[in-house]
Amino acid sequence: SSVRMGRTEPSVFAEFSELSDKFNAVNLGQGFPDYAMPDFVKEAAVEAIRADYNQYSRPAGHARLVEKLASRYSPRFGRSIDAYTEIGVVGGATNAIFSALVALVDPDDEVVCVEPYFDAPKIAADLMGATTIGVPLRADWAETAADWKLDLDELDDALTERTKLLVLNTPHNPTGKVFSREELEGIAEVVKRYPRLLVLSDEVYEGMVYDGLRHHHVGAVEGMFERTISVFSVGKTFSATGWRVGYAVGPEPLIAPLVRVHQASNFSTPTPLQIASAIAFDKAEEFGYFEDLTATLQAKRDKLCRLLRTAGLSPITPQGGYFLLADTTKIGIPTEFPLWEAPEDLPLRDRRDFAVCRQLCERAGVTAIPASAFFSFGHRHITDSLARFCFSKKDDTLNEAFRRIVHSG
Amino acid sequence: SSVRMGRTEPSVFAEFSELSDKFNAVNLGQGFPDYAMPDFVKEAAVEAIRADYNQYSRPAGHARLVEKLASRYSPRFGRSIDAYTEIGVVGGATNAIFSALVALVDPDDEVVCVEPYFDAPKIAADLMGATTIGVPLRADWAETAADWKLDLDELDDALTERTKLLVLNTPHNPTGKVFSREELEGIAEVVKRYPRLLVLSDEVYEGMVYDGLRHHHVGAVEGMFERTISVFSVGKTFSATGWRVGYAVGPEPLIAPLVRVHQASNFSTPTPLQIASAIAFDKAEEFGYFEDLTATLQAKRDKLCRLLRTAGLSPITPQGGYFLLADTTKIGIPTEFPLWEAPEDLPLRDRRDFAVCRQLCERAGVTAIPASAFFSFGHRHITDSLARFCFSKKDDTLNEAFRRIVHSG
Ligand SMILES: CSCCC(=O)C(=O)O
Ligand SMILES: CSCCC(=O)C(=O)O
Repeated sequence: SSVRMGRTEPSVFAEFSELSDKFNAVNLGQGFPDYAMPDFVKEAAVEAIRADYNQYSRPAGHARLVEKLASRYSPRFGRSIDAYTEIGVVGGATNAIFSALVALVDPDDEVVCVEPYFDAPKIAADLMGATTIGVPLRADWAETAADWKLDLDELDDALTERTKLLVLNTPHNPTGKVFSREELEGIAEVVKRYPRLLVLSDEVYEGMVYDGLRHHHVGAVEGMFERTISVFSVGKTFSATGWRVGYAVGPEPLIAPLVRVHQASNFSTPTPLQIASAIAFDKAEEFGYFEDLTATLQAKRDKLCRLLRTAGLSPITPQGGYFLLADTTKIGIPTEFPLWEAPEDLPLRDRRDFAVCRQLCERAGVTAIPASAFFSFGHRHITDSLARFCFSKKDDTLNEAFRRIVHSG
Repeated sequence: SSVRMGRTEPSVFAEFSELSDKFNAVNLGQGFPDYAMPDFVKEAAVEAIRADYNQYSRPAGHARLVEKLASRYSPRFGRSIDAYTEIGVVGGATNAIFSALVALVDPDDEVVCVEPYFDAPKIAADLMGATTIGVPLRADWAETAADWKLDLDELDDALTERTKLLVLNTPHNPTGKVFSREELEGIAEVVKRYPRLLVLSDEVYEGMVYDGLRHHHVGAVEGMFERTISVFSVGKTFSATGWRVGYAVGPEPLIAPLVRVHQASNFSTPTPLQIASAIAFDKAEEFGYFEDLTATLQAKRDKLCRLLRTAGLSPITPQGGYFLLADTTKIGIPTEFPLWEAPEDLPLRDRRDFAVCRQLCERAGVTAIPASAFFSFGHRHITDSLARFCFSKKDDTLNEAFRRIVHSG
């Protein structure tokens, strides 16, 4: 295989999905719902397929979907978004991230990621020969809450003339942090010091923000639209992660090359699922679906927090998203690694949280993702005791995970 | 945008699809059917969506589909193909080609394409910084047939120690050539002289071979499986080009990195459409669908040949695929370029066949693709008078195209 393949690490999701299947575990690993997606969205797809929307679409997205998205996001971004030049429909948010990296980042460019981070931008940067640098969120955490903060001086120190792209993510995977408008304005002020710096903002969990908090678009902060590609996911929004429909919003000079890469790699996005997405957005607005989604997931978050606390773990209540982090030192499973003491250069897969998550899967039959997989090399010790649990699961699934953890302890 | 974007040319399909829409033309350009896909395949998708196959699948493909494909292709390849290591389900054949190039080809490697060729491998090679070299099919053509041949000495001359990949395509787009077993054996003999040389074989039109001829898999030729990635398309086979489901078959050392690139770029392929594809293959075998497909398309080929001949053009009867080439010098449209005399260094979009196809679209309202778009720089003059017409269209569409050409002449 090519030299660039040697620069990539295998995905933590592949490892733990396989392990989960092998031990027939309750899978709270990868971020997808194990309950059915809404009937009105399924039936939108049925309608599109039967109505013969089954041939190639325009590579940048079917007119019906991009027009719907333009009208939906224009008020949110506080500007008129052009359906045909400022939106690109792609094969899921992963595909948007990948296409953006191929389109924008050169070998020897630097990509700065706020960490912990979902691994897609790093894998794409590795393939393209760029260097990924992490700026950590830091937190003093109490029993049930963590106030994750990005230090703006630390951010400024990480950025250089060679930084091509800053990757942001809000609501944040895996911490559940929702960046406030003030925080984003602070970040924007630092970003604007670097004339060539672009921003990739992963906002796939925009619809999952709890406790009355609000999601803020990075691209809606003053002066940021022109340098930001914002990434969204039909899969996350409509509980259809297997549809692989996502979209990018941004200025034409950034969206055009992204779409050209998408055209080269996939040509277009499945037409019936694009039409279904357009219909789904219409009906969702009519039905009040987005409010229901938030309420359902907030209840599941609260339930899993309660169960894990009862089981003796220390879950940290997230402000948004699909995931929560919990301290694994209290899981009643012997491990070889004492808390916090893993050497910094310990290989990723030998770290304490990996050992704990493997044991949790093998012995208790519950799958979670070790949090150090979301940190870059130099910062992995920061969360050597945390595991990520996904709560977008049936209540029965969450109950069964609880039963198994308690039983194994 | 990145330096690598500057190495790519815009796709001819994008240009002519846009032009076609603008002039409301009868579109015989891009290769997709304008008739409905079979009901049994649509209903397979309805079944999959309603049965909740809507979350992420295994990145290499859902078990149900890869097992079906393994049992379908094992006898065809004359060996037992492993469902889990020798098959990768991806986002269309374009995605298979792109992923293969990213996975296997390094900057400064050479990629040799038999030309004329569909542009996907060249775009991917350009992005990856590799050099594409064309070896032309050559033909003396008579009024209605062309005996396209690949000169094996010319092939051998084009291959070097730096050639990483040879791209083959049978049935061939745009000529419609179906390579015989003897021809493939001859190519294999040359290929085996180059120890590091791999083969990418685009066989998306395997189901469209006419006049009792047979399709032969490159990977089924002795000694070729181990170095060949074969690419197939659910979209072409089931008249669902908008589903973006394709698959690659090959040895594990080639499929594994291809799947890792696909995972990095798309994570997985839409699950309901994978399940639908598996069901469709089952039912198609039961219903004799593949025989019907061949008969239908052969009739359409014959019809379009007849109509174009009546209109005064010289169509060349293809042996397989979706397309035919026709001499445009006889189209009754004045052009600025006399036949064959365009200088070799004339930019692609200024070539005679581009001018003719633009005029055909604007004045007659019929869209065809200029054939020189399928040739590399040094060989474009070879077909400066040919245009490619797609015949996988409703009979009414073909009739209307005829009426318009005659009317405009
Ligand atoms: C496409 S990989 C899954 C991304 C996600 O949902 C996760 O972080 O688990
Ligand atoms: C995915 S681009 C279309 C490929 C094809 O069908 C063509 O050559 O027209």
